[in-house]
Amino acid sequence: MNTIGHLFRLTTFGESHGTAIGGIIDGCPSQLKLDFDFIESELQRRKTVQSATASQRKEPDHIEWLSGLLDGVTLGSPIAFMVRNEDCKPEDYEAIKDIYRPSHADFTYEQKYGLRDWRGGGRASARTTLPIVVAGTIAKQILRDQGIQVQAKVTEMGDAEQARKEGDTVGGIVECCIIGVPAGLGEPMFGKFSAELAHAMFSLPAVKGFEVGDGFALAKMKGSEANDTFINIKDTGLGDARRGTGGGRITTVTNHSGGIQGGITNGNDIVFRVAFKPIPSITRPQQTMNRAGETCTVAIEGRHDVCALPRAVVLVEALAAMVTLDMGMMQG
Amino acid sequence: MNTIGHLFRLTTFGESHGTAIGGIIDGCPSQLKLDFDFIESELQRRKTVQSATASQRKEPDHIEWLSGLLDGVTLGSPIAFMVRNEDCKPEDYEAIKDIYRPSHADFTYEQKYGLRDWRGGGRASARTTLPIVVAGTIAKQILRDQGIQVQAKVTEMGDAEQARKEGDTVGGIVECCIIGVPAGLGEPMFGKFSAELAHAMFSLPAVKGFEVGDGFALAKMKGSEANDTFINIKDTGLGDARRGTGGGRITTVTNHSGGIQGGITNGNDIVFRVAFKPIPSITRPQQTMNRAGETCTVAIEGRHDVCALPRAVVLVEALAAMVTLDMGMMQG
Amino acid sequence: MNTIGHLFRLTTFGESHGTAIGGIIDGCPSQLKLDFDFIESELQRRKTVQSATASQRKEPDHIEWLSGLLDGVTLGSPIAFMVRNEDCKPEDYEAIKDIYRPSHADFTYEQKYGLRDWRGGGRASARTTLPIVVAGTIAKQILRDQGIQVQAKVTEMGDAEQARKEGDTVGGIVECCIIGVPAGLGEPMFGKFSAELAHAMFSLPAVKGFEVGDGFALAKMKGSEANDTFINIKDTGLGDARRGTGGGRITTVTNHSGGIQGGITNGNDIVFRVAFKPIPSITRPQQTMNRAGETCTVAIEGRHDVCALPRAVVLVEALAAMVTLDMGMMQG
Amino acid sequence: MNTIGHLFRLTTFGESHGTAIGGIIDGCPSQLKLDFDFIESELQRRKTVQSATASQRKEPDHIEWLSGLLDGVTLGSPIAFMVRNEDCKPEDYEAIKDIYRPSHADFTYEQKYGLRDWRGGGRASARTTLPIVVAGTIAKQILRDQGIQVQAKVTEMGDAEQARKEGDTVGGIVECCIIGVPAGLGEPMFGKFSAELAHAMFSLPAVKGFEVGDGFALAKMKGSEANDTFINIKDTGLGDARRGTGGGRITTVTNHSGGIQGGITNGNDIVFRVAFKPIPSITRPQQTMNRAGETCTVAIEGRHDVCALPRAVVLVEALAAMVTLDMGMMQG
Repeated sequence: MNTIGHLFRLTTFGESHGTAIGGIIDGCPSQLKLDFDFIESELQRRKTVQSATASQRKEPDHIEWLSGLLDGVTLGSPIAFMVRNEDCKPEDYEAIKDIYRPSHADFTYEQKYGLRDWRGGGRASARTTLPIVVAGTIAKQILRDQGIQVQAKVTEMGDAEQARKEGDTVGGIVECCIIGVPAGLGEPMFGKFSAELAHAMFSLPAVKGFEVGDGFALAKMKGSEANDTFINIKDTGLGDARRGTGGGRITTVTNHSGGIQGGITNGNDIVFRVAFKPIPSITRPQQTMNRAGETCTVAIEGRHDVCALPRAVVLVEALAAMVTLDMGMMQG
Repeated sequence: MNTIGHLFRLTTFGESHGTAIGGIIDGCPSQLKLDFDFIESELQRRKTVQSATASQRKEPDHIEWLSGLLDGVTLGSPIAFMVRNEDCKPEDYEAIKDIYRPSHADFTYEQKYGLRDWRGGGRASARTTLPIVVAGTIAKQILRDQGIQVQAKVTEMGDAEQARKEGDTVGGIVECCIIGVPAGLGEPMFGKFSAELAHAMFSLPAVKGFEVGDGFALAKMKGSEANDTFINIKDTGLGDARRGTGGGRITTVTNHSGGIQGGITNGNDIVFRVAFKPIPSITRPQQTMNRAGETCTVAIEGRHDVCALPRAVVLVEALAAMVTLDMGMMQG
Repeated sequence: MNTIGHLFRLTTFGESHGTAIGGIIDGCPSQLKLDFDFIESELQRRKTVQSATASQRKEPDHIEWLSGLLDGVTLGSPIAFMVRNEDCKPEDYEAIKDIYRPSHADFTYEQKYGLRDWRGGGRASARTTLPIVVAGTIAKQILRDQGIQVQAKVTEMGDAEQARKEGDTVGGIVECCIIGVPAGLGEPMFGKFSAELAHAMFSLPAVKGFEVGDGFALAKMKGSEANDTFINIKDTGLGDARRGTGGGRITTVTNHSGGIQGGITNGNDIVFRVAFKPIPSITRPQQTMNRAGETCTVAIEGRHDVCALPRAVVLVEALAAMVTLDMGMMQG
Repeated sequence: MNTIGHLFRLTTFGESHGTAIGGIIDGCPSQLKLDFDFIESELQRRKTVQSATASQRKEPDHIEWLSGLLDGVTLGSPIAFMVRNEDCKPEDYEAIKDIYRPSHADFTYEQKYGLRDWRGGGRASARTTLPIVVAGTIAKQILRDQGIQVQAKVTEMGDAEQARKEGDTVGGIVECCIIGVPAGLGEPMFGKFSAELAHAMFSLPAVKGFEVGDGFALAKMKGSEANDTFINIKDTGLGDARRGTGGGRITTVTNHSGGIQGGITNGNDIVFRVAFKPIPSITRPQQTMNRAGETCTVAIEGRHDVCALPRAVVLVEALAAMVTLDMGMMQG
């Protein structure tokens, strides 16, 4: 269950303060010259976020490529890569080793596995999402050559500066748009494009909501308001140049459906939103429980973000790219 | 991609106006005496909905059990079942055979497969969800013996009576609660309980949004507001009797997380909401496009629901039960 | 685990004396006009075998197509089909209901599931292979259009007439050749073409051995004897016309490797052999054990084949076709 | 397709002369204290073979554990590990960069991927089996605690000393016995214990044959000769102490079936044999073809084994252990 994808697959490994974080990409097409600069710049997007929200952990995050490449070109064999965990300070976490931090995975992991890696959140740490950026950037590169672009942005976020002062954290919403996807991707019934996206997005830490197109707002609409009218692009005067690979000659005037109808892409932009809860690591003292079942108080120090959102943008894009590429490969 | 589940798996088949609708359940435990009355009553919940919203199609929906049973007891071999499609009126659909109904899957299926089954929506019809109720009810029966209950209800819905008059349709929201789930279910990274639920729910027709716990509302909260405080049940005076199998002695005072933290159940109730768009089949005339790429007008007659919500309740429950059972089996 | 294949998938159901036997084919390309005559004639190959070896059970085996087709053309949605079990005589098996027949699956199924379907072998019956012929014939039809042929034959078999007289049974060997497969199919490491074939063949009842190319004989050879020399087809004077789709311009002079090197097809004929043990149902009295753990004697009456081989030929072909098609779809 | 297993899964990576070889084990139970000495000694079995057959490549093969462990105890998260490729001499292979070595994967990989890693066989090298030993040893450790043992040995092998003198290589047969497996493991139809073993063994380089129990010899037997008679162990005077976890009180007098009936274990020893062809890298000059399609001669220098068999023993055991553990976990 540490693998995502059907034909373009990523299997990840690593805990926050273990030896290394990494992954294996299986199913990547051969003869692709990897754009290492692009991967590096995408990793920077995950890392160097505005000072208002960033953790103070230094992550040089030098990727070591272990397999799958010859002179930077993919061989078709699995691409393994890793990043060593440096600047680890497990001692920061000694104090909370036996405490269940509220709304963290401490308690649930321990219930599941009978033990947990208390060093920086272990496998549940947001740091374990790094391999997603690597695989997602490779997916983006392949999609780029097909005229498909993935763009996300923060559309809603609490006041981070204020929250930091108060020892608190904030949540928010990331909106993502996939442009140029051809009509016909996604599998009916249990492999819908929307279901694959939902599954992927809920794999990110702190995600609590996902909607496609007008999403929850559609629940309040009537059919006559929600339906998207088809038009022939040539009738719009926009011409065939409007779109990339996707779309063809028919599109919809409105896009309440977010580019997906019956679980399958219709050629219009795929639009979705992801809701992130506030990071649960707050420095304000909280009542909680320890492993002995006793009530206690915890004030989480460590080096934590005030908000996951700025880092999450590139993660949302990466997973969206992986799903899109995978669904495209499924379609053949 | 017509299969859902890892160890408890359902593979479905059937189009709205084909010969039959059905499925194969693989991985169901042996030596289970099926509660056929329960299955029958759950199928009724899907079928006999209030007159304000229901389709007028008559579906006797007699299940024929094809395999996997000896004297009503499961053998461990795959359980196949089917329901014949009776009261089919494909001629109702002749008129729209070459038209792409707005926000239906007509266009996307044709883009994907090069042809489509125009008879009543074919594979994209809501009728194809019937096998989910059968598998879900069997899952519920197994969960019931483990003290786990799944209960959904409509929490938001447009004015159906008014919509029918106007030749329109309405959407809404279903909320579901899974009670008694033990802590520790769900797999980290790409098999989170929440991700599995999201994937399952987005497999239902017309679903456009999904949220767990406080969901999208969490995006506006601070960490200090969103965090759920752990308490020892014995400190509450409620005693161990409060919960069923799940929960153990530790739970949370609030449940903003909806029973899932780090993708793994924490023993509290699992709570989630699913947003359904209005059914796109409206009788009011709409502009659309035909297969020749020409603009035309369509007024959808057929026999359609005004709202999917009443029928959707049992479907949401069924998929929730299947995911819960499957995750429990994965945990061993 | 009742499913085989990655992109072209068959899920089967049914017990020997249950209501029906059937399957769901998922992933079959759309817009294919099924050759029903071909399917019928292949089913005949499984059924009407020489009187010396055949069971006396009458199987009209009328296929009922349940879904996935419109006017005989595939829709891309799952193709479900079934054959009702007629001429069932469970009473034939009453006598052995509590006896473990030697080298049958009676004991192992009961150990696994806590109960077993004693009616004619239940799920372990050779009758459950019927859906394989249906899916395999569809695969053959698709391969045929690609210039790929699958041909098997019995190359070794005991003296069936003599065995029948003695109340005994015989085993044998089926050899299969897949002609016209392009080079480059199969996935390295755990998806080798040979491994997929081995897995598929061991799914047939009574299979106890599998070898590719010279197989076990290679264990006695030297490298200089076993290696296949590459040649350019134009140097052979045979010209490009020698092969169908497969092969290209390079092939090998000898074919000790059976068309597979490093787990991947090399364009030469794929050749393999499958060893079947004698059917364990012999009419001669045998010592065995009943469910109470007591020693007893059994003489199996019922209606059994003397030899599985004649029926097995079409099954071996069917699975070989399914694997070849699936590996071709994986290659894209 | 670089993953094997259902619940206990290994995904491998690496080419012979790439940066590193390694793997990720997903699904390993938590709270297991790894026996590193055992892993080290099993790796030695793969490495230090008799001088008559061994390659002269020096492989220090120091395992670096990257994740999944805390103080040597499994966390339940994926266990990643790697071994750096040292003593690489890609220049040894420069000469054959554009030549298809007979019966190697050079040609087939190039057909599949459009390019190949010519350095020491790349992904097709036997060196890529190292991760199997690591995962297999962990599986053995878990099985050991359940009273299950896996033991393989070479039962047939050509004259290696003579072959080396002649610049040739030899093949052979490995026989493996799994002792103490409980009855009831394996899944009917497409998940048979025998099919899973066959698939696993054919994943090893140079494997061309696989048989269970009496295997191909069964093709020549009559049912009366091939059937295994059940007995109650207490009737044998051996008592319940005869077996470990497996077996229970009923077993078979003979074991022609190799411990598997109907694809499911019967509690007797699981016995199978694997046929390996001679290593294709011979130093004697051979005619072959280059990438330009021209006939040429090759004499393979490099550092190659004369026979794969001695190294293969631990690999056969490792995969057998992985399959047994996985099937046990599937049974729950």
